Amino acid sequence: MKIKYPNPSVTNKRVTNVIPSGKNGMLFEGAINATNEYYRIHNKAIIYKKPTPIQVVKVDYPTRSAAKIVEAYYKTPSTTDYNGIYKGRYIDYEAKETIHNSFAFKHIFPHQIKHLVDVANMGGIAFVIIYYKKANKVIIIDIKSFVNLYNDGYDNDKRKSLPLDLALEIGMEVKLGYTPQIDYLDAIDKLYNI
Amino acid sequence: MKIKYPNPSVTNKRVTNVIPSGKNGMLFEGAINATNEYYRIHNKAIIYKKPTPIQVVKVDYPTRSAAKIVEAYYKTPSTTDYNGIYKGRYIDYEAKETIHNSFAFKHIFPHQIKHLVDVANMGGIAFVIIYYKKANKVIIIDIKSFVNLYNDGYDNDKRKSLPLDLALEIGMEVKLGYTPQIDYLDAIDKLYNI
Repeated sequence: MKIKYPNPSVTNKRVTNVIPSGKNGMLFEGAINATNEYYRIHNKAIIYKKPTPIQVVKVDYPTRSAAKIVEAYYKTPSTTDYNGIYKGRYIDYEAKETIHNSFAFKHIFPHQIKHLVDVANMGGIAFVIIYYKKANKVIIIDIKSFVNLYNDGYDNDKRKSLPLDLALEIGMEVKLGYTPQIDYLDAIDKLYNI
Repeated sequence: MKIKYPNPSVTNKRVTNVIPSGKNGMLFEGAINATNEYYRIHNKAIIYKKPTPIQVVKVDYPTRSAAKIVEAYYKTPSTTDYNGIYKGRYIDYEAKETIHNSFAFKHIFPHQIKHLVDVANMGGIAFVIIYYKKANKVIIIDIKSFVNLYNDGYDNDKRKSLPLDLALEIGMEVKLGYTPQIDYLDAIDKLYNI
């Protein structure tokens, strides 16, 4: 599959908002992490968030044993936020949230899309999981469905985002709950028929 | 499988030595990373090193766009160094090197061993890859073989390390070359018969 990319935005950054806003506010990343911990404890899947890549420039050693980093910078992640194993299969995804009713493509890096397509081509489960905050809906979109719309935006200079309605149509909605909060593996079973 | 652990060492840290020493010196981690890049370019596998986890305490914003981290500390990794997908399967491993002819178990965290055992139990390919620098040999040891010796050390208070000879006996030696430098997937094919 050939992928074309919209102009990469240099201001492209994580849209995760860790401040709850209003009654529908949800700490999306925290909820995903708690869900993954639940899955690990219950031997359902082993999925972790990758650490944020940081370029360390200068380290001080105030004591012999402790290293204190005094100059460092955030780096662009090479891949996606989460990966691991589920039902013996490799699983890989990027988690995003938006306060709007449409998810802007510029909030995901082109090389992350490429990575997910490569994973899918190798037989892995690869997707984007988006939290539409206003509607309080979490939707999983398989990367091959996602990339078609993404390319459409590139080709025709018209599609710049994924509206909630379309996401619901092409993706699989995740039932929200308490333990786990975001039971997305249930949606994965349905979406991938596994 | 029940795992018992030796006393976790608080001084337990990565033994990777990035300075080449003598004619057998090899930049092990760099060579593994270059090999993984080779595998990705040739569509053989998608395997990345996870970023080093860092706890950020204080960030300055000298300009509106640039974030400068001015206080941060290294954290203990939750899992292992490398993971990804190979032949549709989940693959996960820890890479270590030793300047001695025996690899001391204290250089690997108990929770990393547990993580690898959990991955193996879920059907993933999980192993430790060790570079015995003096002998210039790289050996892959499946986690289930590794953990038996590791537990033996715990139970009997006798085995504290894995000597090269025993590693060669229970593991699979990796042929060293140029492109790629450490063709460990070839050894994986043989060891796991895939």
